Amino acid sequence: MRVKSMVLASLLAATCSLSLAQDKVVYHINDAASQALSGLRNLRNHLDVDPSAKITVVSHGEGVDFLMEGAKHPSGAAYDALVSALVARGVSFEVCEITLRNRSLKKEQFIQEANFTPSGVVRIARLQTQGFGYIKP
Amino acid sequence: MRVKSMVLASLLAATCSLSLAQDKVVYHINDAASQALSGLRNLRNHLDVDPSAKITVVSHGEGVDFLMEGAKHPSGAAYDALVSALVARGVSFEVCEITLRNRSLKKEQFIQEANFTPSGVVRIARLQTQGFGYIKP
Amino acid sequence: MRVKSMVLASLLAATCSLSLAQDKVVYHINDAASQALSGLRNLRNHLDVDPSAKITVVSHGEGVDFLMEGAKHPSGAAYDALVSALVARGVSFEVCEITLRNRSLKKEQFIQEANFTPSGVVRIARLQTQGFGYIKP
Repeated sequence: MRVKSMVLASLLAATCSLSLAQDKVVYHINDAASQALSGLRNLRNHLDVDPSAKITVVSHGEGVDFLMEGAKHPSGAAYDALVSALVARGVSFEVCEITLRNRSLKKEQFIQEANFTPSGVVRIARLQTQGFGYIKP
Repeated sequence: MRVKSMVLASLLAATCSLSLAQDKVVYHINDAASQALSGLRNLRNHLDVDPSAKITVVSHGEGVDFLMEGAKHPSGAAYDALVSALVARGVSFEVCEITLRNRSLKKEQFIQEANFTPSGVVRIARLQTQGFGYIKP
Repeated sequence: MRVKSMVLASLLAATCSLSLAQDKVVYHINDAASQALSGLRNLRNHLDVDPSAKITVVSHGEGVDFLMEGAKHPSGAAYDALVSALVARGVSFEVCEITLRNRSLKKEQFIQEANFTPSGVVRIARLQTQGFGYIKP
């Protein structure tokens, strides 16, 4: 019994302090035109200073556009190379499937590195429940 | 004593894992013109995919306008029916009382579904302390 | 052994509930022109209603400008007096050092009350890991 309570307490301690070991953060992008390029630069700087950070980018609404095949910033800069470089460093990019339906977009129109999630906002809320911080670029 | 420590550990476990049972999230609206309509759509999608989510919308500054009687989106869409439908699904909409004083607004000018909170930003901070995630539409 | 587990559980309880004692929140500013003045007003209101709140403002990108010597809002209002008053009430203002390099700015160009952090986004993520809520003005 005593051992059991020690185990319980230890497990609990591990759960509570897990978030101290590695910073986790979700970047929220719902307007690609104003947020994507600066957001991608933020991500690169983030990993340069904290290479072990676990980063998930969740996009929905007008935010998914930068993950589409051939997408470019108004300045003419292509997004795909920037995204690929970040995926290679462990960043996950997710697209909201409700947005796909509402905007009649198909998964095939997105770059191969894109992942999909049933609802962007539900995903953002759940990640925070799991200890992720939140950054809106 | 052993039993006591088990109880303590269990209570603790319950406290720590409470947030896993139900996702809680605060939506922050401080500019109704750019955020309210897309935010209300986000909320509907959120509850469609996660019906048990506990959602509080906190508005302040220019964000309170969509909760006023007769408020409409620039496109002409009335907000009140959208808000009522979400309230019926458990969403709470809150208006900052400091904003009321600064903008000389009265509670009577707001729809019946609106709740009030002494300070919008204090409320947003406190909800996060209580395990709420944060989403800025 | 029993005592040890009690101590462990108590320590754990203390850690888990620490955030209930004092609200902590990070304000994120990455565009001074649109966020700084309203953000500074939010901060003042925040402390008026919750004087014990621990508040850190992290700025990066175009968000650092309001902390530079002589900075003014487009309306002509000087920022420094507002910032000084908030520092006197315990608010910390931080500037991202990556931004300094990218924009060729020097620490000497900032007001004395400004602090510096290696990376704004890393800092924002880490503060949330430490129990800070997040507000984007």
